[in-house]
Amino acid sequence: MRILGIDPGLHITGWGVIDYEGNHLKHVSHGTVVTDSSDDIAVRLNTIYKALSDVIEDNSPDEVSIEEVFVNNNPLSSLKLGMARGAAICCAGILGLKVFEYTPNKIKKAVVGVGHATKDQISTMVQILLNCGPVKLDAADALAIAICHAHNKTAY
Amino acid sequence: MRILGIDPGLHITGWGVIDYEGNHLKHVSHGTVVTDSSDDIAVRLNTIYKALSDVIEDNSPDEVSIEEVFVNNNPLSSLKLGMARGAAICCAGILGLKVFEYTPNKIKKAVVGVGHATKDQISTMVQILLNCGPVKLDAADALAIAICHAHNKTAY
Repeated sequence: MRILGIDPGLHITGWGVIDYEGNHLKHVSHGTVVTDSSDDIAVRLNTIYKALSDVIEDNSPDEVSIEEVFVNNNPLSSLKLGMARGAAICCAGILGLKVFEYTPNKIKKAVVGVGHATKDQISTMVQILLNCGPVKLDAADALAIAICHAHNKTAY
Repeated sequence: MRILGIDPGLHITGWGVIDYEGNHLKHVSHGTVVTDSSDDIAVRLNTIYKALSDVIEDNSPDEVSIEEVFVNNNPLSSLKLGMARGAAICCAGILGLKVFEYTPNKIKKAVVGVGHATKDQISTMVQILLNCGPVKLDAADALAIAICHAHNKTAY
């Protein structure tokens, strides 16, 4: 099974693809989609949508995994995150993929073993678990989200 | 020129289409997209995306108008609104339409003349301006958003 993990954000959206076969995880690819804050919101959302469409077309994942609602105290940040999430989830859904959601704590536990890991710890553990080279933090989070989904499939 | 106004919401998304020729406004069609709160978020966002795609295909608008960020004090509400907005804006953008944004106050001023009108006042004025029958509140807001864009095109 091939899993695409997405860490959506209006400025930077991380993505990571892994294969998961018989309890074994394998790194396939990863990257980030960066949008220009001086562009219209419509342009930025379409950049995210189109880039993720290309990722799905290039990698043919079977399922998509995304971080569940991270509501912070800033309503404007929540709105921006919501729009990026909306674009990412729509993209996966329109292309016929099922989307699974995991809380930040569950994702951290899946890769580091505890629910309150730092971004650096996540990045390090992702590289160890997938036996791959250095990964940028946003893409590492996306790979962690994909790993979490793989672990969850084992658990059931 | 044909304008599609969208009032996005995760539960109810209103839409309204008007024609605007030589300072004259004409009602074309309107409606609402309702999603089931018991469905997964991905299913709900795709319902919005697909329904608006159909509206665009059926009505062939030239431009799209949408309410600008209405940030309330509840981050979870902002996130939900953001996701619905993201789906709506992506849909318009992917189908090649330019998206224009207006603040709630500007929209109210465009139809009622003041920036703090009630929803009922907006609905009544939309029916008078477009010379159409009763319109549900969410669709009336969407028509008001379209009217605001028409007025704005006159202004420049």
